[in-house]
Amino acid sequence: MVELPPGWLQSAGRIIGRLDALFEIGRDAGTNRPGLGEGEQRAHDLVAGWMHEAGLAVRVDRAGNLWGRAAGADPSLSEVWSGSHLDTPPDGGRFDGALGVVTALEAAAAIKASGGARRTIAVVAFRLEEGPRFGRGVFGSRALFGELEADEADLVDADGVTLGEAFTALGLGPNLPSEAILDRAPACFVEAHIEQGPSLAARGATLGVVTSIAGMAGIEIVFAGRRGHAGTVPMDLRSDALGAAAGFVRRVHDAARSLSGAVATVGRLDVSPGATNTIPGRVELFADLRAPDSDRLDALVAAASSAARHAADGASCQVEVVPRWRYEPVAMDPEPSDALRRAIAGAGLEAVELPSGAGHDSAITAGAGVPSGMLFVRSDAEGVSHAPEEATGADAVAAAVGVLEAALRELAA
Amino acid sequence: MVELPPGWLQSAGRIIGRLDALFEIGRDAGTNRPGLGEGEQRAHDLVAGWMHEAGLAVRVDRAGNLWGRAAGADPSLSEVWSGSHLDTPPDGGRFDGALGVVTALEAAAAIKASGGARRTIAVVAFRLEEGPRFGRGVFGSRALFGELEADEADLVDADGVTLGEAFTALGLGPNLPSEAILDRAPACFVEAHIEQGPSLAARGATLGVVTSIAGMAGIEIVFAGRRGHAGTVPMDLRSDALGAAAGFVRRVHDAARSLSGAVATVGRLDVSPGATNTIPGRVELFADLRAPDSDRLDALVAAASSAARHAADGASCQVEVVPRWRYEPVAMDPEPSDALRRAIAGAGLEAVELPSGAGHDSAITAGAGVPSGMLFVRSDAEGVSHAPEEATGADAVAAAVGVLEAALRELAA
Repeated sequence: MVELPPGWLQSAGRIIGRLDALFEIGRDAGTNRPGLGEGEQRAHDLVAGWMHEAGLAVRVDRAGNLWGRAAGADPSLSEVWSGSHLDTPPDGGRFDGALGVVTALEAAAAIKASGGARRTIAVVAFRLEEGPRFGRGVFGSRALFGELEADEADLVDADGVTLGEAFTALGLGPNLPSEAILDRAPACFVEAHIEQGPSLAARGATLGVVTSIAGMAGIEIVFAGRRGHAGTVPMDLRSDALGAAAGFVRRVHDAARSLSGAVATVGRLDVSPGATNTIPGRVELFADLRAPDSDRLDALVAAASSAARHAADGASCQVEVVPRWRYEPVAMDPEPSDALRRAIAGAGLEAVELPSGAGHDSAITAGAGVPSGMLFVRSDAEGVSHAPEEATGADAVAAAVGVLEAALRELAA
Repeated sequence: MVELPPGWLQSAGRIIGRLDALFEIGRDAGTNRPGLGEGEQRAHDLVAGWMHEAGLAVRVDRAGNLWGRAAGADPSLSEVWSGSHLDTPPDGGRFDGALGVVTALEAAAAIKASGGARRTIAVVAFRLEEGPRFGRGVFGSRALFGELEADEADLVDADGVTLGEAFTALGLGPNLPSEAILDRAPACFVEAHIEQGPSLAARGATLGVVTSIAGMAGIEIVFAGRRGHAGTVPMDLRSDALGAAAGFVRRVHDAARSLSGAVATVGRLDVSPGATNTIPGRVELFADLRAPDSDRLDALVAAASSAARHAADGASCQVEVVPRWRYEPVAMDPEPSDALRRAIAGAGLEAVELPSGAGHDSAITAGAGVPSGMLFVRSDAEGVSHAPEEATGADAVAAAVGVLEAALRELAA
């Protein structure tokens, strides 16, 4: 095992303590901090306090993103950004998102404490990165670049609250920012994030440099059949919406299996009326489709639509397929990526190159033309993520903070 | 079309008005009166008032069942019972259960008004016939015969309320009746009920006499997989609990199709954590299995268990199969059935013989040794039931009340 500097391990201890504190906000089985909700706000408030303690200049932008700046020696130079998000999916873990914010804060504080850099380093916590609450995520980073959709305020969560209402309830103003709220493009953005998969651990590696972020599409599918009594309608006269949905799930999983590097997940599926003795008349589900390049994403989306039609026909049901979002695959930028590689090598570690199957705020910044890089930190516990079991060892956290600090020093020099 | 007596049509008008009044209790899209709930209680109170108006002696037994009696000339003779239930599944219709209670009340009132019969006629509304609330139904009729299970009070609804708590909240006492609460066995029980299927309408018939009630079994199945991020876990490393559940739904539907007269319904299916971008780690579902005889029911239950195991294996998941209830098929009794046949013939209608795929309180009374008969009343709207679209024309309601009155007169003579 590589010997890491004692200062890195001290930083890791502080980071892990802070992640524990954040994990307790909205904790049930896992932590629950849906974006633009009260839990996310409490997490932003807690991190803003830590930013103040570290002497950073704290600011909340019009989208509700939290910024903490360590002023550079030359204000005429564009900024170096680093951070991630503080919201979580339902019953999430302690590392996804939060690690990137807290580690960036630790690194920026260390740089400031040692006299600062030429460029200003800005630590950012983007709002509502996770999709589950409103069916669409990366809100804060998209808002920054004026990329919110026309219907964005009307998206509704499971409790019937619109995104616009949630936004206003946080005191962020009556309307969503419809245009870019960015004064000046940054020099680059570096996001540290857990891998959320098993690849680094399987290679015995601690850190990775992300080459590209997968393309992804979200589609909502509604199967409409005919309700009936569970005992009185013969099988061949049924229009069982769950029969259709089950056929779709099987077909879309098979479609993803047949495309190298593609994945398909039906994570939400609601059966109506949901009574044990009533044939389901309606099923609504959401399919999350991902692929390494646009061609394979096109193929997977087409296969999903076709699977929905075939499954509906097979169960004598109607079907409606509604595309909800699509993000194109994006490549990471050489400059911040090279800085990360050099910093990893400087720590005596192997810099594994790997693509990201998960979407990240980095995909939005990269798509908006900001040179963006991602540092992946090893996930333990077989790579389980979006679950309370999410784990990353202290050694990996220490390596991440040391490497991120070194990379930010180079990029901000 | 057969000309029905004007009195029958007048009765039908009153019955339909009362069904409309009951339908408004707990109305949303359809009506919602879960058993042992506030809506069912309001329906019992309303019907108790109508019983009083008709001069019946009203009583609530220790299980909460509502009784209205038209005293017979000879109190030494055993009673003739007729009725059904007033609870509904979620978003149910206006006929299931309520028709049998209101029609029996109308018939008993007419018999009383015309001088009464030798035997006492008891109109009954049994409690909690529908299964969805607690996963087990026919509570009131089972309680009558001391057939509640040891765990009955601990059954839990979707809001976390136990059956015992719901029972106590209605002022029915601190404990469920653990022994039979019946003073004296009745002469017979006749239940009028909508068919809830398309058979009578397809034959152009109005009324049917039920020959037997299908056997049925309810099993709860839990698939346990491994949660993970929707983007980072390759398809071949997943343990997707919804993949397993989808496989089960398909297999159990196929198993029912391969057994003549059998049906299988998965009406409730809950995905956990239910986030769009998380691989489902757990799915709980309920399978309702029915067949015309014990052998086919055995075969269907065995096929369902095997389907669950195969589906779990195919998705690298664990599975738990928990039998929740089982009711054996029962034959209806010749005596009340013959009385119904004669009454139907007397009205100039065809008496169609048909089995019931739905379970009913009659299955419990028959199983407990009470000579039981069922009058099926035509369902319109393609036989849709357990849904607000449930429909039965006024002609069929008129025929039902006239025939039921005639049969009860004969049985109580």
